[in-house]
Amino acid sequence: MGQQITVLGAGAGGLTTTADLTIQGHDVTLFELPKFESNLEAIRSNEGIDITGAANEGHARPATVTSDPAEAVEDTDLVIQVVPNFAFEPFAEAVGPHLSEGQPFVLLSANTMSALEYRQILDDVGAPEIRLGETPSLAYAVRKTSPSSVHVLGIKRELSVAGLPAEHSSVLAEQMDDVFPFSVSAAENVLETSLFNANPVIHPVGALLNAGEIESPDDEYYLYQNVTDSIGRVMSRVDEERAEIGEALGLEVKTVGELFHDWYGIGENEYYATTTNSLRTSSIHGPIQGPDSLDHRYVTEDVPYGLVPLSEMAAACGVETPTIDSLIQLAEDVHHTDFRADGRTLDDCGIDATDRDALLRVATRSTPVSSLAEACR
Amino acid sequence: MGQQITVLGAGAGGLTTTADLTIQGHDVTLFELPKFESNLEAIRSNEGIDITGAANEGHARPATVTSDPAEAVEDTDLVIQVVPNFAFEPFAEAVGPHLSEGQPFVLLSANTMSALEYRQILDDVGAPEIRLGETPSLAYAVRKTSPSSVHVLGIKRELSVAGLPAEHSSVLAEQMDDVFPFSVSAAENVLETSLFNANPVIHPVGALLNAGEIESPDDEYYLYQNVTDSIGRVMSRVDEERAEIGEALGLEVKTVGELFHDWYGIGENEYYATTTNSLRTSSIHGPIQGPDSLDHRYVTEDVPYGLVPLSEMAAACGVETPTIDSLIQLAEDVHHTDFRADGRTLDDCGIDATDRDALLRVATRSTPVSSLAEACR
Repeated sequence: MGQQITVLGAGAGGLTTTADLTIQGHDVTLFELPKFESNLEAIRSNEGIDITGAANEGHARPATVTSDPAEAVEDTDLVIQVVPNFAFEPFAEAVGPHLSEGQPFVLLSANTMSALEYRQILDDVGAPEIRLGETPSLAYAVRKTSPSSVHVLGIKRELSVAGLPAEHSSVLAEQMDDVFPFSVSAAENVLETSLFNANPVIHPVGALLNAGEIESPDDEYYLYQNVTDSIGRVMSRVDEERAEIGEALGLEVKTVGELFHDWYGIGENEYYATTTNSLRTSSIHGPIQGPDSLDHRYVTEDVPYGLVPLSEMAAACGVETPTIDSLIQLAEDVHHTDFRADGRTLDDCGIDATDRDALLRVATRSTPVSSLAEACR
Repeated sequence: MGQQITVLGAGAGGLTTTADLTIQGHDVTLFELPKFESNLEAIRSNEGIDITGAANEGHARPATVTSDPAEAVEDTDLVIQVVPNFAFEPFAEAVGPHLSEGQPFVLLSANTMSALEYRQILDDVGAPEIRLGETPSLAYAVRKTSPSSVHVLGIKRELSVAGLPAEHSSVLAEQMDDVFPFSVSAAENVLETSLFNANPVIHPVGALLNAGEIESPDDEYYLYQNVTDSIGRVMSRVDEERAEIGEALGLEVKTVGELFHDWYGIGENEYYATTTNSLRTSSIHGPIQGPDSLDHRYVTEDVPYGLVPLSEMAAACGVETPTIDSLIQLAEDVHHTDFRADGRTLDDCGIDATDRDALLRVATRSTPVSSLAEACR
């Protein structure tokens, strides 16, 4: 108890983590990039963060609120980054030079191959070898209700964390288990946490197969309530492709229905909780409104940082992913954007290996990626 | 004027064609398969077909209403088949043996490569070499209002017809131009008419990208009104891929926006009518309700008999169609059906040639497909 913790990012997830851990009794520093200083101003004038809902409730006053990266991360016990994947670079550039050798640093809002790319970005900015880890997803289902308040719809009962290299998984899991009000266990490696993210399964399908309704001016849209049979079938196909990638990598991948059961207890009393039913009936996710357009992170983040790296992992393992590839294609058509080029590729992660074994070696590596890539040639 | 015409199929399109041409002064026989005899009973008890809307209006009493194929097609000047593509086989089996050498026979509700497959089915049932042709689409935008009445929302101003072999195009065009109350011209060949069908561009995208709303129990859905920006962008990509196939085959393919202009005068007063705007603002198509599920011919016909053969044509020409292929994949996921296997392939058309030139030779052939396929080996 009472650890020195730094939370990077003052979005909904960052505020919730900051507030929850502050109330939990930790000494929390909240950092945001100088260009988003206004996010911090709101918290300063409110003298803290108001948090309601499923996590610790109350008015949380974090120890420090700062946009100075040195002040934020130096000598802290654990850094937790909670920012969208497309913001990885500016955050790594800001804090990277101020991190110290072996410092625990967890990506709490990871998507697919997040730690693998973040390690590469940190290398590029000359950061030391920290103890980097990632969880498969955010701990909280949450929405901002004002610039300084959040409402937590649900909190996961358990979460896993994988270190990069994997030898750090258990020490990170122990530390996070102490810090968080839910159970944290060690994942096999960052490929497992990459595959256990439910967002790329749920969000792009839900958004694309409801493009018309989402773009209708008068409708309010609730993605989870609209998981109809056809939408659920396509999500299940993504689930199956995800499972096939896992199988090729020797990892047992749970369906989204199973993950929602483990995380939130959804479908617990049913004999067999399908992905479709779990999503459609989730009282936690049902009230989440949106998206209100296809220019939304459900597409603009979960395609380039979710489906694209899944497709890349699959290709390296010789697994075909026709449904994932089709969703990427339609998202590209809708956005007139080359998400495959702009998104997260093996190359972005410094991995020029193109087979399953090399991918596994990189995920479990105890040597820097650069020399391993060398060895794979 | 006053030709002997046989209409095959007593669905909305068949009834409209029968009624329109009867009022026009032709001697029309309406044929339906014995298993759908009830369709004919309704017309018999109504002593004809009531037709309202954009075509000839009134109460039409066709000369003959029959489920006897010999009575239907023997000694008739022109046979017009207006049935869904998945019903080609039973119709060909019923009427094929009763057709005569050189008899004009036009597929009015064609989709993609319809005549090419129909010729093959006729060969299989031992039918003679008729003068077969196809139009790119139905002449009427129409809905049944009762088993014996139809309402015509719109009628095309012009239509083209291609013969198979292509040397029959002009004689079929002349005959149809005499018969129909709109202009009929000769198309280059059946590949052009295949590419000029708008349904595979519009329907699968409109249905799939609105799966959630279509499957919502309380909503009434109007596909054309729901061509939002994103949906229009995907349709335009299908349009572009269609144009690339045409280019490879030496055919200039119009966009759906241009086709809607030519056919219905939509967007005529605008400087540039995009496909999206033409569809969204069409007063003819706006009132068309549906689909009310994805188990609808917008998917179950326009994917296997539209997008699949387009993809096959593209492959033979070395053209890539990632958007068309993605739509096929998602339709397969939704239906748990292998539309590529069940749909219309080059093989189903008796074409084992896999290059552009062979495809062109088959479309313009003056020798039977079988010997040409032989020659291509």
